[in-house]
Amino acid sequence: MSDDLNIQDLNTKHAQAMKALKAERDAMMQTKTLEKGLLLVHTGDGKGKSSAGFGMVARNLGWGLKVGVVQYIKGKWKTGERLFFSKFPDQVRYEVMGEGFTWDTQDRARDIAAARAAWLVSQEMIADPKLDFVLLDEINIALRYDYLDIDEVVAVLKARPGDKHVCLTGRNAKPQLLEIADLVTEMTLVKHPFEQGFKAQRGVEF
Amino acid sequence: MSDDLNIQDLNTKHAQAMKALKAERDAMMQTKTLEKGLLLVHTGDGKGKSSAGFGMVARNLGWGLKVGVVQYIKGKWKTGERLFFSKFPDQVRYEVMGEGFTWDTQDRARDIAAARAAWLVSQEMIADPKLDFVLLDEINIALRYDYLDIDEVVAVLKARPGDKHVCLTGRNAKPQLLEIADLVTEMTLVKHPFEQGFKAQRGVEF
Repeated sequence: MSDDLNIQDLNTKHAQAMKALKAERDAMMQTKTLEKGLLLVHTGDGKGKSSAGFGMVARNLGWGLKVGVVQYIKGKWKTGERLFFSKFPDQVRYEVMGEGFTWDTQDRARDIAAARAAWLVSQEMIADPKLDFVLLDEINIALRYDYLDIDEVVAVLKARPGDKHVCLTGRNAKPQLLEIADLVTEMTLVKHPFEQGFKAQRGVEF
Repeated sequence: MSDDLNIQDLNTKHAQAMKALKAERDAMMQTKTLEKGLLLVHTGDGKGKSSAGFGMVARNLGWGLKVGVVQYIKGKWKTGERLFFSKFPDQVRYEVMGEGFTWDTQDRARDIAAARAAWLVSQEMIADPKLDFVLLDEINIALRYDYLDIDEVVAVLKARPGDKHVCLTGRNAKPQLLEIADLVTEMTLVKHPFEQGFKAQRGVEF
Protein backbone atom coordinates (compact mmCIF):
# COMPACT_ATOMS: atom_id res chain seq x y z
CA MET A 1 0.00 0.00 0.00
CA SER A 2 2.71 2.49 0.92
CA ASP A 3 4.62 1.38 -2.19
CA ASP A 4 1.58 2.26 -4.27
CA LEU A 5 1.40 5.66 -2.63
CA ASN A 6 5.08 6.28 -3.24
CA ILE A 7 4.73 5.45 -6.91
CA GLN A 8 1.68 7.66 -7.17
CA ASP A 9 3.61 10.44 -5.51
CA LEU A 10 6.56 9.91 -7.87
CA ASN A 11 4.23 9.97 -10.87
CA THR A 12 2.58 13.18 -9.72
CA LYS A 13 5.91 14.88 -9.13
CA HIS A 14 7.07 13.65 -12.53
CA ALA A 15 3.98 15.08 -14.23
CA GLN A 16 4.49 18.44 -12.51
CA ALA A 17 8.17 18.59 -13.40
CA MET A 18 7.46 17.64 -17.02
CA LYS A 19 4.67 20.22 -17.26
CA ALA A 20 7.10 22.91 -16.13
CA LEU A 21 9.74 21.62 -18.56
CA LYS A 22 7.26 21.64 -21.41
CA ALA A 23 6.26 25.25 -20.68
CA GLU A 24 9.93 26.21 -20.69
CA ARG A 25 10.55 24.38 -23.96
CA ASP A 26 7.46 25.78 -25.63
CA ALA A 27 8.56 29.31 -24.75
CA MET A 28 12.03 28.55 -26.11
CA MET A 29 10.68 27.02 -29.31
CA GLN A 30 8.51 30.08 -29.95
CA THR A 31 11.69 32.08 -30.42
CA LYS A 32 12.79 29.63 -33.14
CA THR A 33 10.86 30.83 -36.13
CA LEU A 34 13.42 31.29 -38.88
CA GLU A 35 13.80 28.90 -41.77
CA LYS A 36 16.56 28.99 -44.32
CA GLY A 37 18.97 26.71 -46.08
CA LEU A 38 21.57 25.65 -43.54
CA LEU A 39 25.28 25.16 -43.98
CA LEU A 40 26.16 22.03 -42.02
CA VAL A 41 29.66 20.76 -41.24
CA HIS A 42 30.48 17.30 -39.83
CA THR A 43 34.10 17.12 -38.75
CA GLY A 44 36.35 15.53 -36.13
CA ASP A 45 38.31 12.28 -35.90
CA GLY A 46 35.33 10.12 -34.96
CA LYS A 47 33.04 8.02 -37.10
CA GLY A 48 29.62 9.08 -38.33
CA LYS A 49 30.48 12.21 -40.33
CA SER A 50 29.50 10.75 -43.69
CA SER A 51 26.88 8.42 -42.20
CA ALA A 52 25.06 11.39 -40.66
CA GLY A 53 25.13 13.11 -44.04
CA PHE A 54 23.60 10.04 -45.66
CA GLY A 55 20.99 9.82 -42.91
CA MET A 56 19.90 13.35 -43.86
CA VAL A 57 19.80 12.30 -47.51
CA ALA A 58 17.32 9.57 -46.49
CA ARG A 59 15.25 12.09 -44.52
CA ASN A 60 15.04 14.42 -47.51
CA LEU A 61 13.97 11.56 -49.76
CA GLY A 62 11.27 10.66 -47.23
CA TRP A 63 9.80 14.15 -47.59
CA GLY A 64 9.87 13.90 -51.37
CA LEU A 65 12.72 16.40 -51.60
CA LYS A 66 15.61 16.22 -54.06
CA VAL A 67 19.25 15.68 -53.20
CA GLY A 68 22.68 16.00 -54.76
CA VAL A 69 25.64 13.95 -53.52
CA VAL A 70 29.28 14.39 -54.49
CA GLN A 71 31.74 11.89 -53.06
CA TYR A 72 35.20 13.44 -53.13
CA ILE A 73 37.22 10.41 -52.07
CA LYS A 74 35.57 7.03 -52.40
CA GLY A 75 36.01 6.86 -56.15
CA LYS A 76 36.50 3.24 -57.07
CA TRP A 77 35.08 1.71 -53.96
CA LYS A 78 31.78 -0.02 -54.01
CA THR A 79 29.91 1.42 -51.05
CA GLY A 80 26.52 0.60 -49.59
CA GLU A 81 25.48 4.25 -49.75
CA ARG A 82 26.20 4.47 -53.46
CA LEU A 83 24.54 1.14 -54.22
CA PHE A 84 21.46 2.28 -52.34
CA PHE A 85 20.97 5.93 -53.25
CA SER A 86 21.77 5.33 -56.91
CA LYS A 87 18.46 3.48 -57.05
CA PHE A 88 16.54 6.76 -56.87
CA PRO A 89 17.72 8.74 -59.90
CA ASP A 90 14.55 10.84 -59.94
CA GLN A 91 15.35 12.20 -56.50
CA VAL A 92 19.11 11.86 -56.22
CA ARG A 93 21.92 13.08 -58.42
CA TYR A 94 24.81 10.94 -57.19
CA GLU A 95 28.33 11.65 -58.42
CA VAL A 96 31.44 9.80 -57.36
CA MET A 97 34.35 11.99 -58.38
CA GLY A 98 37.34 11.04 -56.26
CA GLU A 99 39.91 8.45 -57.14
CA GLY A 100 40.58 7.11 -53.68
CA PHE A 101 42.78 8.21 -50.84
CA THR A 102 45.70 10.41 -51.72
CA TRP A 103 48.05 7.67 -50.47
CA ASP A 104 46.48 5.28 -52.96
CA THR A 105 46.72 7.49 -56.03
CA GLN A 106 50.21 8.79 -55.07
CA ASP A 107 49.68 11.37 -57.77
CA ARG A 108 49.16 14.93 -56.63
CA ALA A 109 48.28 16.29 -60.07
CA ARG A 110 45.62 13.63 -60.51
CA ASP A 111 44.22 14.29 -57.02
CA ILE A 112 43.97 18.00 -57.78
CA ALA A 113 42.27 17.37 -61.12
CA ALA A 114 39.77 15.00 -59.47
CA ALA A 115 39.03 17.49 -56.68
CA ARG A 116 38.58 20.26 -59.21
CA ALA A 117 36.16 18.18 -61.29
CA ALA A 118 34.22 17.29 -58.14
CA TRP A 119 34.03 20.95 -57.16
CA LEU A 120 32.63 21.92 -60.57
CA VAL A 121 29.84 19.37 -60.18
CA SER A 122 29.29 20.56 -56.60
CA GLN A 123 28.81 24.11 -57.83
CA GLU A 124 26.25 22.92 -60.39
CA MET A 125 24.32 21.17 -57.64
CA ILE A 126 24.49 24.12 -55.26
CA ALA A 127 23.10 26.37 -58.01
CA ASP A 128 20.46 23.86 -59.18
CA PRO A 129 17.04 25.10 -58.01
CA LYS A 130 15.63 21.56 -58.21
CA LEU A 131 17.91 20.29 -55.44
CA ASP A 132 16.95 20.91 -51.80
CA PHE A 133 19.95 19.33 -50.08
CA VAL A 134 23.53 18.87 -51.27
CA LEU A 135 26.03 16.57 -49.57
CA LEU A 136 29.71 17.20 -50.30
CA ASP A 137 31.15 14.06 -48.78
CA GLU A 138 34.79 14.28 -47.66
CA ILE A 139 35.32 17.65 -49.32
CA ASN A 140 37.26 18.68 -46.20
CA ILE A 141 40.06 16.32 -47.21
CA ALA A 142 40.42 18.09 -50.57
CA LEU A 143 40.42 21.44 -48.77
CA ARG A 144 42.92 20.31 -46.20
CA TYR A 145 45.49 19.40 -48.85
CA ASP A 146 44.72 22.66 -50.69
CA TYR A 147 43.49 20.74 -53.71
CA LEU A 148 40.68 23.29 -53.63
CA ASP A 149 40.93 26.95 -52.70
CA ILE A 150 39.12 27.58 -49.44
CA ASP A 151 38.34 31.21 -50.31
CA GLU A 152 36.64 30.14 -53.52
CA VAL A 153 34.64 27.44 -51.74
CA VAL A 154 33.57 29.87 -49.00
CA ALA A 155 32.48 32.44 -51.59
CA VAL A 156 30.34 29.90 -53.48
CA LEU A 157 28.77 28.58 -50.28
CA LYS A 158 27.95 32.09 -49.05
CA ALA A 159 26.35 32.96 -52.38
CA ARG A 160 24.17 29.83 -52.50
CA PRO A 161 20.38 30.08 -52.96
CA GLY A 162 18.73 30.99 -49.67
CA ASP A 163 16.75 27.79 -49.22
CA LYS A 164 19.53 25.35 -50.05
CA HIS A 165 20.94 23.08 -47.36
CA VAL A 166 24.56 22.08 -47.93
CA CYS A 167 26.35 19.53 -45.76
CA LEU A 168 30.14 19.21 -45.89
CA THR A 169 31.95 16.33 -44.25
CA GLY A 170 35.49 15.26 -43.42
CA ARG A 171 38.00 15.70 -40.68
CA ASN A 172 40.15 18.82 -40.26
CA ALA A 173 37.51 21.28 -41.44
CA LYS A 174 39.12 24.63 -42.22
CA PRO A 175 38.45 27.48 -39.77
CA GLN A 176 37.11 29.64 -42.60
CA LEU A 177 34.43 27.02 -43.20
CA LEU A 178 33.48 26.73 -39.52
CA GLU A 179 33.20 30.50 -39.47
CA ILE A 180 30.39 30.61 -42.06
CA ALA A 181 28.63 27.37 -41.00
CA ASP A 182 25.23 27.38 -39.30
CA LEU A 183 25.69 24.01 -37.66
CA VAL A 184 28.99 22.38 -36.82
CA THR A 185 29.18 18.97 -35.22
CA GLU A 186 32.41 17.40 -34.15
CA MET A 187 32.40 13.62 -34.13
CA THR A 188 34.82 12.52 -31.43
CA LEU A 189 36.32 9.08 -31.27
CA VAL A 190 35.77 7.48 -27.89
CA LYS A 191 36.34 3.84 -28.81
CA HIS A 192 37.04 2.35 -32.21
CA PRO A 193 36.92 -1.32 -33.24
CA PHE A 194 39.92 -0.83 -35.55
CA GLU A 195 41.97 -0.45 -32.41
CA GLN A 196 40.84 -3.89 -31.44
CA GLY A 197 41.86 -5.52 -34.71
CA PHE A 198 38.51 -5.34 -36.50
CA LYS A 199 38.36 -4.50 -40.14
CA ALA A 200 35.89 -2.16 -41.78
CA GLN A 201 32.60 -3.97 -42.34
CA ARG A 202 29.82 -3.67 -44.90
CA GLY A 203 26.84 -1.68 -43.73
CA VAL A 204 28.73 -0.09 -40.87
CA GLU A 205 31.69 1.71 -42.41
CA PHE A 206 30.92 1.62 -46.13
CA MET B 1 60.36 27.29 -66.25
CA SER B 2 61.50 27.32 -62.62
CA ASP B 3 57.83 27.25 -61.61
CA ASP B 4 57.41 24.10 -63.65
CA LEU B 5 60.44 22.56 -61.97
CA ASN B 6 59.12 23.46 -58.53
CA ILE B 7 55.80 21.86 -59.25
CA GLN B 8 57.51 18.76 -60.59
CA ASP B 9 59.62 18.62 -57.47
CA LEU B 10 56.55 19.04 -55.27
CA ASN B 11 54.75 16.27 -57.15
CA THR B 12 57.70 13.90 -56.80
CA LYS B 13 58.00 14.59 -53.08
CA HIS B 14 54.25 14.11 -52.74
CA ALA B 15 54.41 10.75 -54.53
CA GLN B 16 57.25 9.59 -52.28
CA ALA B 17 55.50 10.69 -49.10
CA MET B 18 52.25 9.02 -50.18
CA LYS B 19 54.07 5.81 -51.08
CA ALA B 20 55.55 5.70 -47.59
CA LEU B 21 52.15 6.49 -46.06
CA LYS B 22 50.51 3.75 -48.08
CA ALA B 23 53.08 1.19 -46.94
CA GLU B 24 52.44 2.22 -43.34
CA ARG B 25 48.68 1.99 -43.79
CA ASP B 26 48.85 -1.35 -45.59
CA ALA B 27 50.89 -2.79 -42.73
CA MET B 28 48.39 -1.41 -40.23
CA MET B 29 45.39 -2.73 -42.16
CA GLN B 30 46.91 -6.21 -42.29
CA THR B 31 46.53 -6.40 -38.53
CA LYS B 32 42.79 -5.68 -38.92
CA THR B 33 41.41 -9.06 -39.81
CA LEU B 34 38.58 -9.70 -37.39
CA GLU B 35 34.95 -9.48 -38.33
CA LYS B 36 32.03 -9.66 -35.95
CA GLY B 37 28.81 -7.92 -35.17
CA LEU B 38 29.68 -4.59 -33.59
CA LEU B 39 27.99 -2.77 -30.77
CA LEU B 40 27.91 0.89 -31.77
CA VAL B 41 26.96 3.82 -29.55
CA HIS B 42 26.29 7.38 -30.77
CA THR B 43 26.05 9.78 -27.86
CA GLY B 44 26.86 13.38 -26.89
CA ASP B 45 24.97 16.67 -27.03
CA GLY B 46 25.61 17.32 -30.73
CA LYS B 47 23.51 16.53 -33.76
CA GLY B 48 23.99 13.53 -36.03
CA LYS B 49 23.53 10.65 -33.57
CA SER B 50 20.32 9.37 -35.14
CA SER B 51 21.25 10.58 -38.62
CA ALA B 52 24.44 8.53 -38.54
CA GLY B 53 22.41 5.49 -37.49
CA PHE B 54 20.06 6.03 -40.44
CA GLY B 55 23.02 6.48 -42.77
CA MET B 56 24.17 3.01 -41.74
CA VAL B 57 20.67 1.69 -42.35
CA ALA B 58 20.97 2.98 -45.93
CA ARG B 59 24.39 1.35 -46.31
CA ASN B 60 23.03 -1.99 -45.17
CA LEU B 61 20.14 -1.74 -47.61
CA GLY B 62 22.62 -1.00 -50.39
CA TRP B 63 24.37 -4.28 -49.69
CA GLY B 64 21.07 -6.15 -49.74
CA LEU B 65 21.21 -6.70 -45.97
CA LYS B 66 18.22 -6.57 -43.62
CA VAL B 67 17.64 -4.03 -40.89
CA GLY B 68 15.48 -3.51 -37.82
CA VAL B 69 14.70 -0.04 -36.48
CA VAL B 70 13.03 0.83 -33.20
CA GLN B 71 12.35 4.48 -32.52
CA TYR B 72 12.00 4.97 -28.78
CA ILE B 73 10.89 8.60 -28.78
CA LYS B 74 9.51 10.01 -31.99
CA GLY B 75 6.15 8.27 -31.67
CA LYS B 76 3.56 10.50 -33.24
CA TRP B 77 5.87 12.64 -35.30
CA LYS B 78 6.01 12.27 -39.00
CA THR B 79 9.71 12.01 -39.81
CA GLY B 80 11.54 11.80 -43.11
CA GLU B 81 13.40 8.70 -41.99
CA ARG B 82 10.19 6.86 -41.20
CA LEU B 83 8.48 7.98 -44.41
CA PHE B 84 11.49 6.78 -46.38
CA PHE B 85 12.56 3.51 -44.78
CA SER B 86 8.98 2.29 -44.39
CA LYS B 87 8.98 1.97 -48.18
CA PHE B 88 11.21 -1.10 -47.98
CA PRO B 89 9.25 -3.58 -45.87
CA ASP B 90 11.13 -6.54 -47.38
CA GLN B 91 14.39 -5.23 -46.02
CA VAL B 92 13.38 -3.09 -43.06
CA ARG B 93 11.28 -3.85 -40.01
CA TYR B 94 10.49 -0.34 -38.78
CA GLU B 95 8.75 0.14 -35.44
CA VAL B 96 7.88 3.45 -33.87
CA MET B 97 7.18 2.72 -30.24
CA GLY B 98 7.64 5.93 -28.28
CA GLU B 99 4.94 8.44 -27.55
CA GLY B 100 7.03 11.59 -27.75
CA PHE B 101 9.27 13.40 -25.36
CA THR B 102 8.69 12.76 -21.70
CA TRP B 103 7.78 16.44 -21.24
CA ASP B 104 5.05 16.00 -23.86
CA THR B 105 3.44 12.91 -22.40
CA GLN B 106 3.83 14.15 -18.78
CA ASP B 107 2.91 10.65 -17.77
CA ARG B 108 5.67 8.56 -16.26
CA ALA B 109 3.68 5.31 -16.20
CA ARG B 110 2.86 5.67 -19.90
CA ASP B 111 6.49 6.47 -20.73
CA ILE B 112 7.65 3.35 -18.89
CA ALA B 113 5.07 1.17 -20.63
CA ALA B 114 6.08 2.56 -24.04
CA ALA B 115 9.78 2.01 -23.33
CA ARG B 116 9.08 -1.50 -22.14
CA ALA B 117 7.08 -2.33 -25.28
CA ALA B 118 9.88 -0.90 -27.43
CA TRP B 119 12.44 -3.00 -25.59
CA LEU B 120 10.44 -6.17 -26.18
CA VAL B 121 10.41 -5.49 -29.92
CA SER B 122 14.11 -4.62 -29.77
CA GLN B 123 14.87 -7.99 -28.21
CA GLU B 124 12.93 -9.75 -30.96
CA MET B 125 14.99 -7.92 -33.57
CA ILE B 126 18.29 -8.61 -31.83
CA ALA B 127 17.45 -12.29 -31.74
CA ASP B 128 16.05 -12.43 -35.30
CA PRO B 129 18.61 -14.25 -37.49
CA LYS B 130 17.21 -12.55 -40.60
CA LEU B 131 18.29 -9.08 -39.45
CA ASP B 132 21.90 -7.96 -39.96
CA PHE B 133 21.73 -4.54 -38.34
CA VAL B 134 19.48 -3.21 -35.58
CA LEU B 135 19.10 0.48 -34.78
CA LEU B 136 17.72 1.35 -31.34
CA ASP B 137 17.11 5.04 -31.88
CA GLU B 138 17.09 7.20 -28.73
CA ILE B 139 17.10 4.19 -26.42
CA ASN B 140 19.63 6.08 -24.28
CA ILE B 141 16.87 8.47 -23.22
CA ALA B 142 14.76 5.58 -21.90
CA LEU B 143 17.83 4.24 -20.09
CA ARG B 144 18.72 7.59 -18.65
CA TYR B 145 15.33 7.97 -16.97
CA ASP B 146 15.53 4.34 -15.80
CA TYR B 147 12.47 3.44 -17.85
CA LEU B 148 14.53 0.41 -18.78
CA ASP B 149 16.93 -1.50 -16.58
CA ILE B 150 20.49 -1.00 -17.80
CA ASP B 151 21.67 -4.35 -16.45
CA GLU B 152 18.98 -6.16 -18.42
CA VAL B 153 19.80 -4.24 -21.60
CA VAL B 154 23.53 -4.93 -21.19
CA ALA B 155 22.87 -8.65 -20.65
CA VAL B 156 20.74 -8.92 -23.81
CA LEU B 157 23.27 -6.98 -25.89
CA LYS B 158 26.16 -9.13 -24.67
CA ALA B 159 24.24 -12.30 -25.47
CA ARG B 160 23.33 -11.21 -29.02
CA PRO B 161 24.18 -13.40 -32.03
CA GLY B 162 27.84 -12.98 -32.96
CA ASP B 163 27.32 -11.44 -36.38
CA LYS B 164 24.66 -8.90 -35.39
CA HIS B 165 25.46 -5.20 -35.49
CA VAL B 166 23.46 -3.14 -33.01
CA CYS B 167 23.57 0.66 -32.92
CA LEU B 168 22.21 2.58 -29.93
CA THR B 169 21.72 6.33 -30.01
CA GLY B 170 20.88 9.17 -27.68
CA ARG B 171 22.65 11.54 -25.36
CA ASN B 172 23.83 10.59 -21.85
CA ALA B 173 24.73 7.00 -22.70
CA LYS B 174 25.16 4.99 -19.51
CA PRO B 175 28.74 4.06 -18.53
CA GLN B 176 27.76 0.37 -18.42
CA LEU B 177 26.82 0.63 -22.09
CA LEU B 178 30.04 2.39 -23.09
CA GLU B 179 31.91 -0.33 -21.27
CA ILE B 180 30.63 -3.13 -23.52
CA ALA B 181 30.52 -1.12 -26.78
CA ASP B 182 32.95 -1.77 -29.64
CA LEU B 183 32.62 1.69 -31.13
CA VAL B 184 31.60 4.82 -29.27
CA THR B 185 31.29 8.15 -31.01
CA GLU B 186 30.53 11.34 -29.17
CA MET B 187 28.79 13.97 -31.25
CA THR B 188 29.82 17.34 -29.87
CA LEU B 189 27.92 20.52 -30.48
CA VAL B 190 30.16 23.22 -31.88
CA LYS B 191 27.55 25.50 -33.38
CA HIS B 192 23.79 25.00 -33.58
CA PRO B 193 21.27 26.93 -35.69
CA PHE B 194 18.69 26.73 -32.88
CA GLU B 195 20.89 29.16 -31.00
CA GLN B 196 20.43 31.55 -33.86
CA GLY B 197 16.64 31.39 -33.86
CA PHE B 198 16.21 28.72 -36.54
CA LYS B 199 13.59 26.07 -36.16
CA ALA B 200 14.03 22.37 -36.91
CA GLN B 201 13.69 21.80 -40.63
CA ARG B 202 12.50 18.88 -42.75
CA GLY B 203 15.27 16.76 -44.17
CA VAL B 204 17.84 18.10 -41.74
CA GLU B 205 16.53 17.39 -38.26
CA PHE B 206 13.62 15.05 -38.90
